[in-house]
Amino acid sequence: MASSRHDPRFLRSRAAIVNAARELLVAHGPGAITHARVAEQAGIARATVYRHWPRTDQLLAAAMTTVPMPFFDAPSVPTRAWLVHELTAIARQLDHHDVRVVATTLANAALWEDDMDARREGYARLLTNRLTEALEVAQARGEVDLHTAPRHAAALAIGPIYFRATIERDSTDDELIAAAVENLGRWR
Amino acid sequence: MASSRHDPRFLRSRAAIVNAARELLVAHGPGAITHARVAEQAGIARATVYRHWPRTDQLLAAAMTTVPMPFFDAPSVPTRAWLVHELTAIARQLDHHDVRVVATTLANAALWEDDMDARREGYARLLTNRLTEALEVAQARGEVDLHTAPRHAAALAIGPIYFRATIERDSTDDELIAAAVENLGRWR
Repeated sequence: MASSRHDPRFLRSRAAIVNAARELLVAHGPGAITHARVAEQAGIARATVYRHWPRTDQLLAAAMTTVPMPFFDAPSVPTRAWLVHELTAIARQLDHHDVRVVATTLANAALWEDDMDARREGYARLLTNRLTEALEVAQARGEVDLHTAPRHAAALAIGPIYFRATIERDSTDDELIAAAVENLGRWR
Repeated sequence: MASSRHDPRFLRSRAAIVNAARELLVAHGPGAITHARVAEQAGIARATVYRHWPRTDQLLAAAMTTVPMPFFDAPSVPTRAWLVHELTAIARQLDHHDVRVVATTLANAALWEDDMDARREGYARLLTNRLTEALEVAQARGEVDLHTAPRHAAALAIGPIYFRATIERDSTDDELIAAAVENLGRWR
Protein backbone atom coordinates (compact mmCIF):
# COMPACT_ATOMS: atom_id res chain seq x y z
CA MET A 1 0.00 0.00 0.00
CA ALA A 2 3.03 2.32 0.43
CA SER A 3 2.99 3.56 -3.18
CA SER A 4 -0.76 4.21 -3.12
CA ARG A 5 -0.21 6.92 -0.52
CA HIS A 6 0.87 9.18 -3.38
CA ASP A 7 -2.12 8.22 -5.49
CA PRO A 8 -4.44 11.30 -5.72
CA ARG A 9 -7.52 9.05 -5.55
CA PHE A 10 -6.21 7.47 -2.35
CA LEU A 11 -5.65 10.88 -0.79
CA ARG A 12 -9.04 12.19 -1.94
CA SER A 13 -10.94 9.26 -0.50
CA ARG A 14 -8.94 9.53 2.72
CA ALA A 15 -9.87 13.21 3.08
CA ALA A 16 -13.54 12.47 2.31
CA ILE A 17 -13.62 9.72 4.95
CA VAL A 18 -12.05 11.90 7.68
CA ASN A 19 -14.43 14.74 6.81
CA ALA A 20 -17.47 12.44 6.98
CA ALA A 21 -16.30 10.99 10.33
CA ARG A 22 -15.86 14.49 11.70
CA GLU A 23 -19.37 15.51 10.55
CA LEU A 24 -20.90 12.44 12.20
CA LEU A 25 -18.95 12.99 15.43
CA VAL A 26 -19.95 16.64 15.76
CA ALA A 27 -23.61 16.08 14.78
CA HIS A 28 -24.35 12.76 16.49
CA GLY A 29 -21.50 11.80 18.85
CA PRO A 30 -18.81 9.11 18.86
CA GLY A 31 -21.39 6.29 18.72
CA ALA A 32 -22.34 7.42 15.20
CA ILE A 33 -18.87 6.61 13.85
CA THR A 34 -19.27 3.21 12.21
CA HIS A 35 -17.79 2.08 8.89
CA ALA A 36 -21.29 1.86 7.37
CA ARG A 37 -22.36 5.38 8.35
CA VAL A 38 -19.01 6.96 7.46
CA ALA A 39 -19.09 5.24 4.05
CA GLU A 40 -22.64 6.47 3.42
CA GLN A 41 -21.85 10.02 4.57
CA ALA A 42 -18.68 10.15 2.43
CA GLY A 43 -20.30 8.50 -0.59
CA ILE A 44 -17.50 5.92 -0.65
CA ALA A 45 -17.58 2.10 -0.64
CA ARG A 46 -17.50 0.57 2.81
CA ALA A 47 -14.53 -1.63 1.82
CA THR A 48 -12.53 1.52 1.06
CA VAL A 49 -13.23 2.88 4.53
CA TYR A 50 -12.05 -0.42 6.06
CA ARG A 51 -8.88 -0.30 3.91
CA HIS A 52 -7.92 3.12 5.29
CA TRP A 53 -9.03 2.54 8.91
CA PRO A 54 -9.71 -1.08 9.86
CA ARG A 55 -11.14 -0.16 13.29
CA THR A 56 -13.82 2.35 14.36
CA ASP A 57 -11.62 3.73 17.16
CA GLN A 58 -9.09 4.70 14.47
CA LEU A 59 -11.83 6.49 12.53
CA LEU A 60 -12.85 8.32 15.72
CA ALA A 61 -9.24 9.33 16.43
CA ALA A 62 -8.82 10.60 12.85
CA ALA A 63 -12.02 12.65 13.19
CA MET A 64 -10.87 14.12 16.50
CA THR A 65 -7.52 15.31 15.13
CA THR A 66 -9.39 17.62 12.71
CA VAL A 67 -10.54 19.79 15.65
CA PRO A 68 -7.76 22.06 16.97
CA MET A 69 -7.66 21.82 20.76
CA PRO A 70 -6.89 24.83 22.97
CA PHE A 71 -3.42 24.99 24.52
CA PHE A 72 -1.08 27.56 26.08
CA ASP A 73 0.96 29.69 23.73
CA ALA A 74 4.61 30.48 24.59
CA PRO A 75 4.77 32.52 27.82
CA SER A 76 5.39 36.26 27.80
CA VAL A 77 5.97 38.84 30.56
CA PRO A 78 4.12 39.93 32.63
CA THR A 79 3.05 36.34 33.33
CA ARG A 80 -0.21 37.39 34.94
CA ALA A 81 -1.43 39.19 31.81
CA TRP A 82 -0.24 36.28 29.66
CA LEU A 83 -2.14 33.81 31.82
CA VAL A 84 -5.39 35.84 31.71
CA HIS A 85 -5.04 36.14 27.93
CA GLU A 86 -4.38 32.40 27.45
CA LEU A 87 -7.17 31.26 29.77
CA THR A 88 -9.57 33.61 28.00
CA ALA A 89 -8.55 32.09 24.66
CA ILE A 90 -9.09 28.58 26.07
CA ALA A 91 -12.50 29.60 27.46
CA ARG A 92 -13.54 31.05 24.09
CA GLN A 93 -12.47 27.85 22.29
CA LEU A 94 -14.41 25.76 24.80
CA ASP A 95 -17.52 27.79 23.87
CA HIS A 96 -17.50 25.90 20.57
CA HIS A 97 -19.52 22.72 20.28
CA ASP A 98 -16.82 20.84 18.34
CA VAL A 99 -14.14 21.58 20.97
CA ARG A 100 -16.48 20.41 23.76
CA VAL A 101 -17.16 17.29 21.68
CA VAL A 102 -13.47 16.43 21.41
CA ALA A 103 -12.62 17.31 25.04
CA THR A 104 -15.45 15.20 26.50
CA THR A 105 -15.00 12.34 24.02
CA LEU A 106 -11.29 12.25 24.93
CA ALA A 107 -12.01 12.11 28.67
CA ASN A 108 -14.69 9.46 28.17
CA ALA A 109 -13.04 7.15 25.60
CA ALA A 110 -9.68 7.28 27.46
CA LEU A 111 -11.30 5.21 30.22
CA TRP A 112 -11.41 2.13 27.94
CA GLU A 113 -9.09 2.64 24.96
CA ASP A 114 -5.29 2.77 25.32
CA ASP A 115 -4.73 4.85 22.18
CA MET A 116 -7.27 7.41 23.32
CA ASP A 117 -5.74 7.45 26.78
CA ALA A 118 -2.33 8.21 25.26
CA ARG A 119 -3.91 11.16 23.42
CA ARG A 120 -5.59 12.35 26.62
CA GLU A 121 -2.30 12.12 28.50
CA GLY A 122 -0.41 14.00 25.79
CA TYR A 123 -3.04 16.72 25.80
CA ALA A 124 -3.11 16.99 29.61
CA ARG A 125 0.70 17.22 29.68
CA LEU A 126 0.69 19.91 26.99
CA LEU A 127 -1.65 22.03 29.14
CA THR A 128 -0.12 21.25 32.53
CA ASN A 129 3.60 21.33 31.70
CA ARG A 130 3.59 24.63 29.89
CA LEU A 131 1.59 26.34 32.61
CA THR A 132 3.65 24.78 35.42
CA GLU A 133 6.90 25.90 33.78
CA ALA A 134 5.61 29.42 33.16
CA LEU A 135 4.56 29.75 36.81
CA GLU A 136 7.89 28.36 38.07
CA VAL A 137 9.76 30.94 35.99
CA ALA A 138 7.41 33.73 37.13
CA GLN A 139 7.98 32.75 40.76
CA ALA A 140 11.78 32.62 40.32
CA ARG A 141 11.61 36.06 38.71
CA GLY A 142 9.65 37.43 41.71
CA GLU A 143 6.41 38.05 39.80
CA VAL A 144 4.33 35.86 42.09
CA ASP A 145 4.37 33.94 45.37
CA LEU A 146 2.27 30.89 44.58
CA HIS A 147 -0.13 29.59 47.26
CA THR A 148 0.49 25.98 46.23
CA ALA A 149 2.82 23.73 44.19
CA PRO A 150 3.13 24.87 40.56
CA ARG A 151 1.93 21.43 39.38
CA HIS A 152 -1.43 22.14 41.04
CA ALA A 153 -1.71 25.44 39.18
CA ALA A 154 -2.97 23.93 35.93
CA ALA A 155 -5.85 22.21 37.70
CA LEU A 156 -6.71 25.36 39.68
CA ALA A 157 -6.52 27.61 36.61
CA ILE A 158 -7.98 25.38 33.87
CA GLY A 159 -10.24 23.13 35.95
CA PRO A 160 -12.96 25.76 36.56
CA ILE A 161 -13.14 26.53 32.82
CA TYR A 162 -13.47 22.83 31.90
CA PHE A 163 -16.06 22.23 34.60
CA ARG A 164 -18.11 25.22 33.48
CA ALA A 165 -17.90 24.25 29.79
CA THR A 166 -18.56 20.52 30.13
CA ILE A 167 -20.56 19.93 33.34
CA GLU A 168 -22.31 23.29 33.81
CA ARG A 169 -22.26 23.63 29.98
CA ASP A 170 -21.90 27.39 30.20
CA SER A 171 -19.41 30.02 29.10
CA THR A 172 -16.61 31.17 31.42
CA ASP A 173 -16.71 34.95 31.84
CA ASP A 174 -13.86 37.38 32.58
CA GLU A 175 -14.74 37.55 36.29
CA LEU A 176 -14.19 33.83 36.81
CA ILE A 177 -10.90 33.90 34.90
CA ALA A 178 -9.68 36.95 36.84
CA ALA A 179 -10.55 35.22 40.13
CA ALA A 180 -8.85 31.95 39.11
CA VAL A 181 -5.62 33.80 38.20
CA GLU A 182 -5.70 36.15 41.21
CA ASN A 183 -6.21 33.15 43.50
CA LEU A 184 -3.07 31.30 42.36
CA GLY A 185 -0.80 33.37 44.61
CA ARG A 186 0.25 36.83 45.64
CA TRP A 187 1.06 38.74 42.43
CA ARG A 188 3.43 41.71 42.63
CA MET B 1 -48.31 -3.31 31.00
CA ALA B 2 -49.23 -1.53 34.27
CA SER B 3 -50.18 -4.71 36.13
CA SER B 4 -47.02 -6.50 34.98
CA ARG B 5 -44.96 -4.01 36.98
CA HIS B 6 -45.94 -6.02 40.05
CA ASP B 7 -45.09 -9.31 38.38
CA PRO B 8 -41.97 -10.73 40.10
CA ARG B 9 -40.68 -12.06 36.75
CA PHE B 10 -41.03 -8.58 35.23
CA LEU B 11 -39.10 -7.02 38.11
CA ARG B 12 -36.42 -9.74 38.03
CA SER B 13 -35.78 -9.34 34.31
CA ARG B 14 -35.73 -5.56 34.72
CA ALA B 15 -33.06 -5.81 37.43
CA ALA B 16 -31.02 -8.28 35.36
CA ILE B 17 -31.11 -5.95 32.34
CA VAL B 18 -30.04 -2.88 34.33
CA ASN B 19 -27.25 -4.86 35.95
CA ALA B 20 -26.02 -6.15 32.57
CA ALA B 21 -26.14 -2.64 31.09
CA ARG B 22 -24.14 -1.32 34.03
CA GLU B 23 -21.50 -4.06 33.64
CA LEU B 24 -21.13 -3.30 29.92
CA LEU B 25 -20.91 0.46 30.54
CA VAL B 26 -18.22 0.14 33.21
CA ALA B 27 -16.17 -2.48 31.34
CA HIS B 28 -16.48 -1.27 27.75
CA GLY B 29 -18.06 2.20 27.62
CA PRO B 30 -21.40 3.60 26.46
CA GLY B 31 -20.91 2.30 22.90
CA ALA B 32 -21.18 -1.27 24.24
CA ILE B 33 -24.78 -0.71 25.36
CA THR B 34 -26.87 -2.26 22.58
CA HIS B 35 -30.01 -4.38 22.99
CA ALA B 36 -28.15 -7.41 21.60
CA ARG B 37 -25.20 -7.18 23.99
CA VAL B 38 -27.31 -6.36 27.02
CA ALA B 39 -29.61 -9.33 26.24
CA GLU B 40 -26.61 -11.64 25.89
CA GLN B 41 -24.96 -10.35 29.08
CA ALA B 42 -28.22 -10.66 31.06
CA GLY B 43 -29.15 -14.04 29.58
CA ILE B 44 -32.54 -12.64 28.57
CA ALA B 45 -34.34 -12.57 25.20
CA ARG B 46 -33.64 -9.47 23.13
CA ALA B 47 -37.39 -8.82 22.74
CA THR B 48 -37.69 -8.58 26.52
CA VAL B 49 -34.96 -5.95 26.64
CA TYR B 50 -36.80 -3.96 23.94
CA ARG B 51 -40.06 -4.27 25.90
CA HIS B 52 -38.51 -2.69 29.00
CA TRP B 53 -36.37 -0.07 27.22
CA PRO B 54 -37.21 0.51 23.55
CA ARG B 55 -34.16 2.75 22.96
CA THR B 56 -30.44 2.31 23.74
CA ASP B 57 -30.20 5.79 25.27
CA GLN B 58 -32.81 4.67 27.84
CA LEU B 59 -30.73 1.58 28.62
CA LEU B 60 -27.66 3.80 29.07
CA ALA B 61 -29.58 6.18 31.36
CA ALA B 62 -30.84 3.23 33.45
CA ALA B 63 -27.28 1.90 33.78
CA MET B 64 -25.97 5.32 34.82
CA THR B 65 -28.51 5.74 37.62
CA THR B 66 -27.04 2.66 39.35
CA VAL B 67 -23.82 4.59 40.10
CA PRO B 68 -24.23 7.05 43.01
CA MET B 69 -22.74 10.40 42.01
CA PRO B 70 -20.88 12.63 44.50
CA PHE B 71 -22.75 15.66 45.79
CA PHE B 72 -22.58 18.10 48.73
CA ASP B 73 -24.10 16.99 52.00
CA ALA B 74 -26.10 19.51 54.09
CA PRO B 75 -23.79 22.35 55.24
CA SER B 76 -22.43 22.53 58.78
CA VAL B 77 -20.41 25.15 60.66
CA PRO B 78 -17.57 26.02 60.34
CA THR B 79 -18.22 26.19 56.61
CA ARG B 80 -14.55 25.98 55.73
CA ALA B 81 -14.11 22.60 57.46
CA TRP B 82 -17.39 21.38 55.91
CA LEU B 83 -16.19 22.40 52.45
CA VAL B 84 -12.80 20.67 52.81
CA HIS B 85 -14.59 17.54 54.06
CA GLU B 86 -17.11 17.54 51.20
CA LEU B 87 -14.55 18.24 48.46
CA THR B 88 -12.36 15.45 49.86
CA ALA B 89 -15.35 13.08 49.71
CA ILE B 90 -16.05 14.14 46.10
CA ALA B 91 -12.37 13.66 45.19
CA ARG B 92 -12.34 10.15 46.74
CA GLN B 93 -15.50 9.21 44.83
CA LEU B 94 -13.96 10.51 41.59
CA ASP B 95 -11.03 8.14 42.21
CA HIS B 96 -13.42 5.32 41.29
CA HIS B 97 -13.58 4.15 37.70
CA ASP B 98 -17.39 3.84 37.67
CA VAL B 99 -17.89 7.41 38.92
CA ARG B 100 -15.47 8.73 36.24
CA VAL B 101 -17.40 6.66 33.70
CA VAL B 102 -20.72 8.26 34.62
CA ALA B 103 -19.34 11.81 34.96
CA THR B 104 -17.60 11.76 31.56
CA THR B 105 -20.43 9.89 29.82
CA LEU B 106 -22.87 12.50 31.15
CA ALA B 107 -20.75 15.41 29.90
CA ASN B 108 -20.26 13.73 26.52
CA ALA B 109 -23.76 12.36 25.80
CA ALA B 110 -25.41 15.63 26.98
CA LEU B 111 -24.00 17.29 23.86
CA TRP B 112 -26.42 15.33 21.63
CA GLU B 113 -29.23 13.88 23.72
CA ASP B 114 -31.87 16.05 25.43
CA ASP B 115 -32.66 13.53 28.16
CA MET B 116 -28.99 13.20 29.05
CA ASP B 117 -28.59 16.97 28.98
CA ALA B 118 -31.46 17.30 31.47
CA ARG B 119 -29.64 14.83 33.75
CA ARG B 120 -26.38 16.77 33.36
CA GLU B 121 -28.14 20.03 34.18
CA GLY B 122 -29.85 18.53 37.24
CA TYR B 123 -26.53 17.18 38.47
CA ALA B 124 -24.67 20.47 37.84
CA ARG B 125 -27.41 22.38 39.70
CA LEU B 126 -27.26 19.97 42.62
CA LEU B 127 -23.53 20.64 42.98
CA THR B 128 -23.58 24.36 42.24
CA ASN B 129 -26.71 25.45 44.13
CA ARG B 130 -25.89 23.77 47.42
CA LEU B 131 -22.33 25.13 47.41
CA THR B 132 -23.42 28.61 46.34
CA GLU B 133 -26.04 28.76 49.10
CA ALA B 134 -23.61 27.49 51.75
CA LEU B 135 -21.07 30.15 50.77
CA GLU B 136 -23.70 32.91 50.73
CA VAL B 137 -24.76 31.94 54.25
CA ALA B 138 -21.12 31.71 55.40
CA GLN B 139 -20.45 35.19 54.01
CA ALA B 140 -23.57 36.66 55.67
CA ARG B 141 -22.46 35.07 58.95
CA GLY B 142 -19.02 36.69 58.61
CA GLU B 143 -17.09 33.44 58.14
CA VAL B 144 -15.59 34.49 54.83
CA ASP B 145 -15.13 37.43 52.45
CA LEU B 146 -15.40 35.77 49.03
CA HIS B 147 -13.06 36.99 46.27
CA THR B 148 -15.73 36.46 43.62
CA ALA B 149 -19.49 35.89 43.12
CA PRO B 150 -20.75 32.84 45.05
CA ARG B 151 -22.06 31.33 41.80
CA HIS B 152 -18.45 31.11 40.58
CA ALA B 153 -17.46 29.24 43.71
CA ALA B 154 -18.65 25.83 42.53
CA ALA B 155 -16.52 26.03 39.40
CA LEU B 156 -13.47 27.26 41.35
CA ALA B 157 -13.87 24.60 44.06
CA ILE B 158 -15.04 21.56 42.09
CA GLY B 159 -13.53 22.33 38.68
CA PRO B 160 -9.94 21.47 39.65
CA ILE B 161 -11.05 18.10 41.06
CA TYR B 162 -13.02 17.24 37.90
CA PHE B 163 -10.16 18.34 35.66
CA ARG B 164 -7.65 16.28 37.60
CA ALA B 165 -9.90 13.19 37.65
CA THR B 166 -11.07 13.26 34.03
CA ILE B 167 -8.45 15.11 31.94
CA GLU B 168 -5.29 14.56 34.00
CA ARG B 169 -6.81 11.25 35.16
CA ASP B 170 -5.17 11.50 38.53
CA SER B 171 -6.22 11.70 42.15
CA THR B 172 -6.75 15.07 43.88
CA ASP B 173 -4.65 15.29 47.06
CA ASP B 174 -5.28 17.27 50.26
CA GLU B 175 -2.92 20.06 49.21
CA LEU B 176 -4.91 20.88 46.09
CA ILE B 177 -8.21 20.82 48.02
CA ALA B 178 -6.78 23.04 50.78
CA ALA B 179 -5.55 25.53 48.17
CA ALA B 180 -8.88 25.55 46.29
CA VAL B 181 -10.80 26.29 49.52
CA GLU B 182 -8.27 28.82 50.87
CA ASN B 183 -8.37 30.65 47.52
CA LEU B 184 -12.14 31.23 47.53
CA GLY B 185 -11.86 34.24 49.84
CA ARG B 186 -10.50 35.58 53.10
CA TRP B 187 -11.56 33.11 55.82
CA ARG B 188 -11.82 34.40 59.41
